[in-house]
Amino acid sequence: MANLPNGGPIVDDQLEVLEQAGVLMQGEKILEIASYSALREKIKNTGAELQEITEPMVLLPGFIDAHTHLCYAGSRAKDYALRVAGKTYLDIARSGGGILDTVRKTRAASQEELVKTLLQRCARHLAEGVTTCEVKSGYGLTVADELKMLEAIQTANQQQALELVPTCLAAHMCPPEFTSPKEYLEMVVRELLPIVKAKNLAKRVDIFIEDTAFSEELALEYLQKAKELGFEVTVHADQFSTGGSHVAAQVQAISADHLEASGTHELEMMKQAKVVATVLPGASLGLGMHYAPARQMLDQGLCVAIATDWNPGSAPMGDLLLQAALLGASQKLTMAETLAGITYRAALALGLQDRGTLATGQLADFIAFPTDHYQEILYVQGKLKPTKIWKKGNLVHG
Amino acid sequence: MANLPNGGPIVDDQLEVLEQAGVLMQGEKILEIASYSALREKIKNTGAELQEITEPMVLLPGFIDAHTHLCYAGSRAKDYALRVAGKTYLDIARSGGGILDTVRKTRAASQEELVKTLLQRCARHLAEGVTTCEVKSGYGLTVADELKMLEAIQTANQQQALELVPTCLAAHMCPPEFTSPKEYLEMVVRELLPIVKAKNLAKRVDIFIEDTAFSEELALEYLQKAKELGFEVTVHADQFSTGGSHVAAQVQAISADHLEASGTHELEMMKQAKVVATVLPGASLGLGMHYAPARQMLDQGLCVAIATDWNPGSAPMGDLLLQAALLGASQKLTMAETLAGITYRAALALGLQDRGTLATGQLADFIAFPTDHYQEILYVQGKLKPTKIWKKGNLVHG
Repeated sequence: MANLPNGGPIVDDQLEVLEQAGVLMQGEKILEIASYSALREKIKNTGAELQEITEPMVLLPGFIDAHTHLCYAGSRAKDYALRVAGKTYLDIARSGGGILDTVRKTRAASQEELVKTLLQRCARHLAEGVTTCEVKSGYGLTVADELKMLEAIQTANQQQALELVPTCLAAHMCPPEFTSPKEYLEMVVRELLPIVKAKNLAKRVDIFIEDTAFSEELALEYLQKAKELGFEVTVHADQFSTGGSHVAAQVQAISADHLEASGTHELEMMKQAKVVATVLPGASLGLGMHYAPARQMLDQGLCVAIATDWNPGSAPMGDLLLQAALLGASQKLTMAETLAGITYRAALALGLQDRGTLATGQLADFIAFPTDHYQEILYVQGKLKPTKIWKKGNLVHG
Repeated sequence: MANLPNGGPIVDDQLEVLEQAGVLMQGEKILEIASYSALREKIKNTGAELQEITEPMVLLPGFIDAHTHLCYAGSRAKDYALRVAGKTYLDIARSGGGILDTVRKTRAASQEELVKTLLQRCARHLAEGVTTCEVKSGYGLTVADELKMLEAIQTANQQQALELVPTCLAAHMCPPEFTSPKEYLEMVVRELLPIVKAKNLAKRVDIFIEDTAFSEELALEYLQKAKELGFEVTVHADQFSTGGSHVAAQVQAISADHLEASGTHELEMMKQAKVVATVLPGASLGLGMHYAPARQMLDQGLCVAIATDWNPGSAPMGDLLLQAALLGASQKLTMAETLAGITYRAALALGLQDRGTLATGQLADFIAFPTDHYQEILYVQGKLKPTKIWKKGNLVHG
């Protein structure tokens, strides 16, 4: 997989498929991928042992979910029921719903409670083949509650095999305690981000750019300050209206995520600035809206990652493989493009070079599906689950 | 649920929700649904036993999948890979794919092989809450192979708890052995249908009306003859072009299924003829095309059922609850409308009056979800599965 393109279209022929092959691991890394016979030759006289799998199995790199809000308290089922019944965003907010509902519940939850439900979601995600998962804060919106979320993510990360990549999304929306979004962001830069940095709770900072959240102007200023503090930056961009992608390009964000509203111009700006385009089919499915233009992105040469956006409001499903398959069917992505979107291109969206392919030197994160052909995996649109999962060389499932 | 409307919109308030309530069963039927306290009163001195469930559980009627092609041999993963890579229907047919590929594989399979794979699919469907499932023939297209399929369905029906409702779809397409679709259908009427009737292998006859399958004129004649032979009739209609729905209305078919291309006029004709509109989100997801206009159908007063169309070509996923949830999110169906589409309205699509609601006298087919509110079920878009399933009064899962 090492020669696959980082951006642009990929046809299935570019996927390298090895038959009767295995993985040689050393510690947490892959030492070699080769045919059983070559591996047998390699390890003879070393005392190492080759465990050959006899039933049909397809091995893929562990999936990487590059955008989630997996740490939260409470359900928003009522919001969902209102939305499918045709109620507007405003109707739902008036009835006590929306992001602020999750903020209230997350603030009221203890760190232990957040860890407990986060671990439950991690267990499901891991069992579905996800071995690396980004998780954002953003339902605290006070210094103490954002730290509580980031510490919950850190704690959960230590307690199970799914590797969590934390992101500080204190700039999710302006909390009710502040009348000025500008003052809120200034407080975050002054008081929260230095602690996040000092405690090493996150290397990444995100902001939601939208009419209902933060303006492009404020976002640009905020992200520049975050970069000065040493954070990598990423952006919630162009979900309902364009603008966020422009900011992402200007600050050379590592990724811009959502992009349902992006047009040719936005995509071109992102391409020039080498911003990874992370599309979120889970939000499209949760809101019942159209997908981001993934086909066009690839045709314009962008690097396209696919993530769930798993969150209690707009994306409550959370099934990366299934959602990627549905996006691929609708947007006409080749199987190679879809698989790249949840493996090595997702790794690029997180700035990780050490995973997402099966190759020498990469982390030994891989998953095995009980089938004899890789095409069967996307074909059944998420209904085939991996039966064995390895994380950093350890069999952690199956 | 007895007072819910058969056609047209339903708001969630019309769902009757009983709390701290249970089901009293007698044999395979429901004797009464009432609060635990009322049930306790009712059974005292009878020797009957009340098993109270203490953990939070929501009980729903068993789901009904009113349109599937669950009996088939082989995979069409390669077709799928070509389709997402942008290849056309004709490209796929030229490469040896399409329905005829499944016909070849199904003809080559023994009845025992068909039973075996059908049972595997039934097991998954049942575990996901489906307690009644329509299954079509249509990959045999000879007298012997159509009978082989219908007998496989009959055998599978006797070997597990998911109740199968067979449908003869010999008119799926014109097989290569016939140059004239008219002569093929005449053969089916003359040679196959009388045997199907005599052996009681199916009470229902279906036809695929489309440019690539059978014309409206031939379909009308065929369905009229099937009715004369005593069959109920149903139609694959308006998937890519309109016309099938007109035939369905003319012959007063029990249902017309697909309807992605139907407009106001088609829907009005179907409504007048009391044809149930069965929409198939699984085919939309499998082909990556738009959904049938379910919202408009309900607003025009139609009875809308929701089914998977589970088949190896256009709808390989097969997950009724998940697909219904996604359709509902996109088409803005109330939770009541979505649940009705996979319960009592799906029963109406199959002409079954004895299931689809939890009410006295109905079959004791019901499923329990591990949650404290029914809204949680559709909210997570198929990711919450039932943990207990009863079919005709027997606990068959969990």
